[in-house]
Amino acid sequence: MNRQTREDLHSQADPYATRLPDGERWIERADPVVWTGSQPEGDHAPLSADDVASYERNGYLVQRDLFTPDEVSALVQAATELREAPKGALGDDAVYEPGAEELRTLFRLETHHALFDLLARSQRVAGVARQLLADDIYIHQSRLNYKPGFTGKEFYWHSDFETWHAEDGMPRMRALSASILLTDNDALNGPLMLMPGSQRVFIGCQGETPQDNHKTSLRKQEIGTPSQDSLCRLSDRFGIDHVAGPAGTVIFFDCNTMHGSNGNITPNPRSNAFFVFNAVSNRLTAPFAAVRPRPPFLARRKGCEPLALHRQPLSASA
Amino acid sequence: MNRQTREDLHSQADPYATRLPDGERWIERADPVVWTGSQPEGDHAPLSADDVASYERNGYLVQRDLFTPDEVSALVQAATELREAPKGALGDDAVYEPGAEELRTLFRLETHHALFDLLARSQRVAGVARQLLADDIYIHQSRLNYKPGFTGKEFYWHSDFETWHAEDGMPRMRALSASILLTDNDALNGPLMLMPGSQRVFIGCQGETPQDNHKTSLRKQEIGTPSQDSLCRLSDRFGIDHVAGPAGTVIFFDCNTMHGSNGNITPNPRSNAFFVFNAVSNRLTAPFAAVRPRPPFLARRKGCEPLALHRQPLSASA
Repeated sequence: MNRQTREDLHSQADPYATRLPDGERWIERADPVVWTGSQPEGDHAPLSADDVASYERNGYLVQRDLFTPDEVSALVQAATELREAPKGALGDDAVYEPGAEELRTLFRLETHHALFDLLARSQRVAGVARQLLADDIYIHQSRLNYKPGFTGKEFYWHSDFETWHAEDGMPRMRALSASILLTDNDALNGPLMLMPGSQRVFIGCQGETPQDNHKTSLRKQEIGTPSQDSLCRLSDRFGIDHVAGPAGTVIFFDCNTMHGSNGNITPNPRSNAFFVFNAVSNRLTAPFAAVRPRPPFLARRKGCEPLALHRQPLSASA
Repeated sequence: MNRQTREDLHSQADPYATRLPDGERWIERADPVVWTGSQPEGDHAPLSADDVASYERNGYLVQRDLFTPDEVSALVQAATELREAPKGALGDDAVYEPGAEELRTLFRLETHHALFDLLARSQRVAGVARQLLADDIYIHQSRLNYKPGFTGKEFYWHSDFETWHAEDGMPRMRALSASILLTDNDALNGPLMLMPGSQRVFIGCQGETPQDNHKTSLRKQEIGTPSQDSLCRLSDRFGIDHVAGPAGTVIFFDCNTMHGSNGNITPNPRSNAFFVFNAVSNRLTAPFAAVRPRPPFLARRKGCEPLALHRQPLSASA
């Protein structure tokens, strides 16, 4: 990227300047965590006022009773079916372990299995996103993650929004993720760790975005992560929490909540279904700090119509 | 190693055959976990009968009140002094991060600081080893470990005895380790994980010992670890525990208890002082499955006289 373009992108109009050449910057969040206003008409609000207040304070919310045991079984079974699909059957959305047959990640999850489409559009999941973002929503990114035991790698601290803003062109902090656990998670098998309250601080990160950064950053993110000094300060200020829970547990977390996970040498694998919901009013523009936007499996640009929610049970016969 | 030598070493007289060419073997432990008999005369027995029973059952015991706050502060301070010693001042026992000035491990710890010598010979620490092993003891190996936050690497599952037997020539399971935490440890910063009860099973591991194996195995152990299948079975049978606790916490664990630790991306470093006590009646012989014994900083062969215990407080003026 030449200097001119860089200056344009990092214009004063952007409250979340990042990938900075001269050092990182702590910036106060310019957007609400819980949005109000244009709640879609006739909408159901799944969260209680207490849950909303907790989400606003911490930047995440854990729900352990959203699904029946049968629904959890059906979801786990659907994930198994996808993992056991012949290599090649899932097209370019499937990422396999290098030199191996094991599926590690399947992007655009809702397009590959009817049950995950139902899950993504369930009031119990997407309805929460619509309630907190106070807008119609669409799926910015989704995936099925599978991490085996023994060799699970760590995922270093980051704010999702930092990358979505820099590399995808997401304008504002009006998006959130829902992670649905498909295996039991405890403190020892690399659970999601979050810094409660960190969603209120945006760390503009140092360093320019390399071309095709996503080809390496999905494996190991190096650009777009805070310095160790900033992480120490964040940790001192906010602490570190982690989410333990059985399969079926759902974690909703804000797009700017600092999070990561440790590696895992225990025999217990980890799997989850992951959906990022973005407000339709917050559709992607040009990247704020990258030459080219990332490909569509990482950041949807077409087909961003409002998601049609439903109240059906999640059934294997879906 | 030629075939002849290998056969000799893996003779029928060795109850703990390992580094096997043809596959791993589960072997029932042939030695007691808690030894009885030749308790040294006039000896003090620091552990209660309940603590001894717990150690025998689980293969480890956690003690949280062995030291006063002043003693813990003095130990932490002593560790800091050693870490801040100029590179080179500690000789060959010091291992630094590649290309960096940061001390990671200091072997023969008790020879480098009077306070750690006092610690190693304290009735509260060494007295426990003497009680459980029912013999005079000496220090087989010792070290100060320092793992920084953010980049702490995992340590894969292993039985210490497997290596000490194969590569050092330790004949029987009559040794134990004491790990004294010098930083707070919780579930998220890579604590020691142990499989309670696993000390009763010896996994004879597959694979020959490469020459100078210790030069790589200290960084990442590959030979002498159980298969994933065995680890799944061990985990199903025994479960996985971990040790959380503040600085000053002491973990005593049997030489054959299966243990490991995850990596650590949190900002919180980990440090501990580590002493391996071996019964004097269990002194090293020739390695059971390696061409040459490991060097003395890893496995003491000279100066194995009984340790002289004391009841003094641990004071910085030591």
